Amino acid sequence: MQQGTLGEVGEFGLIKVLTGGLPRTPAVQVGPGDDAAVVAAPDGRVVATTDVLLEGRHFRRDWSTAYDVGRKAAAQNLADVAAMGAAPTALLLGLVAPADLSVTWAGELMDGLRDECQVAGAAVVGGDVVRGDTIMVSITALGDLQGRAPVTRSGARPGDVVAVAGWLGWSAAGLAVLSRGFRSPRAFVEAHRRPEPPYHAGPAAATLGATAMMDVSDGLVADLGHIAAASGVHIDLRAERFDVPAQMADIGHAVGVDPMQWVLTGGEDHALVATFPPDADLPARWRRVGQVLKAATTPDGGRVTVDGAPWTTAGGWDHFGD
Amino acid sequence: MQQGTLGEVGEFGLIKVLTGGLPRTPAVQVGPGDDAAVVAAPDGRVVATTDVLLEGRHFRRDWSTAYDVGRKAAAQNLADVAAMGAAPTALLLGLVAPADLSVTWAGELMDGLRDECQVAGAAVVGGDVVRGDTIMVSITALGDLQGRAPVTRSGARPGDVVAVAGWLGWSAAGLAVLSRGFRSPRAFVEAHRRPEPPYHAGPAAATLGATAMMDVSDGLVADLGHIAAASGVHIDLRAERFDVPAQMADIGHAVGVDPMQWVLTGGEDHALVATFPPDADLPARWRRVGQVLKAATTPDGGRVTVDGAPWTTAGGWDHFGD
Repeated sequence: MQQGTLGEVGEFGLIKVLTGGLPRTPAVQVGPGDDAAVVAAPDGRVVATTDVLLEGRHFRRDWSTAYDVGRKAAAQNLADVAAMGAAPTALLLGLVAPADLSVTWAGELMDGLRDECQVAGAAVVGGDVVRGDTIMVSITALGDLQGRAPVTRSGARPGDVVAVAGWLGWSAAGLAVLSRGFRSPRAFVEAHRRPEPPYHAGPAAATLGATAMMDVSDGLVADLGHIAAASGVHIDLRAERFDVPAQMADIGHAVGVDPMQWVLTGGEDHALVATFPPDADLPARWRRVGQVLKAATTPDGGRVTVDGAPWTTAGGWDHFGD
Repeated sequence: MQQGTLGEVGEFGLIKVLTGGLPRTPAVQVGPGDDAAVVAAPDGRVVATTDVLLEGRHFRRDWSTAYDVGRKAAAQNLADVAAMGAAPTALLLGLVAPADLSVTWAGELMDGLRDECQVAGAAVVGGDVVRGDTIMVSITALGDLQGRAPVTRSGARPGDVVAVAGWLGWSAAGLAVLSRGFRSPRAFVEAHRRPEPPYHAGPAAATLGATAMMDVSDGLVADLGHIAAASGVHIDLRAERFDVPAQMADIGHAVGVDPMQWVLTGGEDHALVATFPPDADLPARWRRVGQVLKAATTPDGGRVTVDGAPWTTAGGWDHFGD
């Protein structure tokens, strides 16, 4: 890894570090270094999503390594692609960073992006670097539908089952641990630093008839609220269907939080949640957690209940709220 | 336009303002509001590019309106798509903004993005908003090659002619005017605030056999240096081939700058520069400005000359340099 700061190596030196040794997949026809990348889109449609991560708001350099920030930044975008039922193909990076940032940090960020792309089957194809006071990582991910119809938020129908693939509450429990100055249990801290979205579960769900799908980024109840609103339905979850691992319960006990709160409202694990027709043979990795009912809002105006009652302390994350 | 600040309307209120009334083109199959957008890619390949604009570095709120920032942010990305020989199809926005920013500013930024997209034939299809201290606009643009081979930087061959479409030096002259506290001549100030890339000239050049192409964002000499390096050639420009409008000469006289400096090294007009085989019948809007020679570096190590000599004061823009 090259020594020095971004200010010392300059824009073109930094680009050389970032793009050096990037693996190419067969989908990459023109990679980094030209005005734009060219990526195969064999389906004839391309899925595209973008997310911005800001230092201090989405990550802290004392809690996460540059590598972890890269993994997480890529994961949350690639999960959005999978949540449409598409296979991720490519990723672009916009990086704002201070001139005194070490080249090593930037290189390790790129290592994280590259490795997470590899897990999802995608490749880093381009980007832009700009000097600024705060680190900002802006990611765009692309994907291919491989002939499937995109699975939106609006297709859930009364009678459908609600199912989840991936982890729930692990990142939130890990954040609770870190916030109190601890570094263990390690599995939860790692889950916060580096989520593991079930990428392949997205296309699998689309193939098996999922009627609506999202990735869980704001919390399960909040995100299901978006599906319920877009589909004009009500969704009821069954609490007993959710696993609370013993270690998560221990953390909850230690910090005075009901761990179901993390499971139902914690974001950032980037699990996938989908609705399926009642007779669907749920694909592997998907577990049933509730059902879709006719539209009926709860007393507090919500559209999602747990065992028939509002989850009162539920709440998503409003980026401009306090 | 809605009143108040981003903090007052919150994340979802802001998203409603930004996405309300966005026009859709036939290419948009799933627009804003889902996990990801779905955009037609009939060619079977997609062209993708990303750029970040930072307040204070790429724009100033006292020099440019939010609408102009939107136009410019979209233009520089859509021009990169055109420079590959592709037709722009879609644009995604990542916006970091302080909670005390007015909703009106954000709405006008989106108006600018939307209108520039319309000029280029594209549509805004998605985005992300995050609260932060400084305004940051991150744009990703997508495009379709419509069956053409992408025109990269590496295909220029000795004997090719060098040609330019669009404006050169206007933005730099406008910046010189603004930097000295003036607001006129208006045409140059407007050119700085709102570049007008010749979008259609990109695909036209690709159709007519362009061997290499770029959009001029760092200055003509610097950007041709990239083509010369990637293609392993030398490029010689003819000074007499460039128009210096009388008003630009007047500004140069007033501020003590040789206007050819703006023409040859000013970026941000997002003109297109391309190389064509010697017998090419140059498409409309393209004017010949030089020729491609066998590789031979100048005494200062450069690969681009003007009338056979290095353009000594030439220099691109290094985002991490001082």
